[in-house]
Amino acid sequence: MKNVDEKFMNLAYLQAQKALLEDEVPVGCVIVKDNQVIARAYNKRESKKSSIAHAEILAIQKACKKLNSWRLIDCTLYVTLEPCPMCAGAIILSRIDRVVIGALDPKGGAIVSNVQLFDQKNFNHHPKVTYGVKNNECSSILTNYFKSKRK
Amino acid sequence: MKNVDEKFMNLAYLQAQKALLEDEVPVGCVIVKDNQVIARAYNKRESKKSSIAHAEILAIQKACKKLNSWRLIDCTLYVTLEPCPMCAGAIILSRIDRVVIGALDPKGGAIVSNVQLFDQKNFNHHPKVTYGVKNNECSSILTNYFKSKRK
Repeated sequence: MKNVDEKFMNLAYLQAQKALLEDEVPVGCVIVKDNQVIARAYNKRESKKSSIAHAEILAIQKACKKLNSWRLIDCTLYVTLEPCPMCAGAIILSRIDRVVIGALDPKGGAIVSNVQLFDQKNFNHHPKVTYGVKNNECSSILTNYFKSKRK
Repeated sequence: MKNVDEKFMNLAYLQAQKALLEDEVPVGCVIVKDNQVIARAYNKRESKKSSIAHAEILAIQKACKKLNSWRLIDCTLYVTLEPCPMCAGAIILSRIDRVVIGALDPKGGAIVSNVQLFDQKNFNHHPKVTYGVKNNECSSILTNYFKSKRK
């Protein structure tokens, strides 16, 4: 599992690198089913001028289109940064089975940090979670981006 | 304020009625700025085959387009049902000033019920909230829809 997770997190990281090239906050995501990538996306908030255009939301939309369903059963979502409440909520709604996170987000995260949305007993789906996969790379790309912005 | 809120909640309710005609879970939403409706939408999960296509998300996307910005400053969002975590998160991210809710959602809500996402101290925006505006109508349309589904 560890090697498989690192392999797919690498692909999510490549998406974050694409965001960087477009001067977007570098977060990337892939969705995997049956060991195949079915969707890949990166944050496009600035270019789309939309607060909805996070990597996870764009990847979920692509995956729904690919599977022709709003239910992403048996899918695993890999994302370089811990999802915010919007994206964590979208993951619950789309019934994604498992989420693999690169770096945690102590300020904006809503799965491990701040509020544990996957553990709310009334919600009707509770995805499994792994975090810290390729943590250093996923964290550094963000830190370096924000450092360059402050120069 | 009360009359103004009821007026705009009526418009959100009209959107919920449109959802009903298309056999979607009847939730409707409008976004208001300077006393003008800048976006209106209703739940389209089934027709769009996407778990993202909640009324609030579709309305936020339209409002961002209209204002050509991801920041919906000084906007009020009216919605017939308490937002889920995804939509509450999208409201925070888009910097909406105030949210007016029709009926609460004890099972899926994430503003008043279950988890109070607008009160998380680390999150960088905390919208104001009013709830219970035209509660009976907003609640009944949902109850009747689910009753008809069980027949």
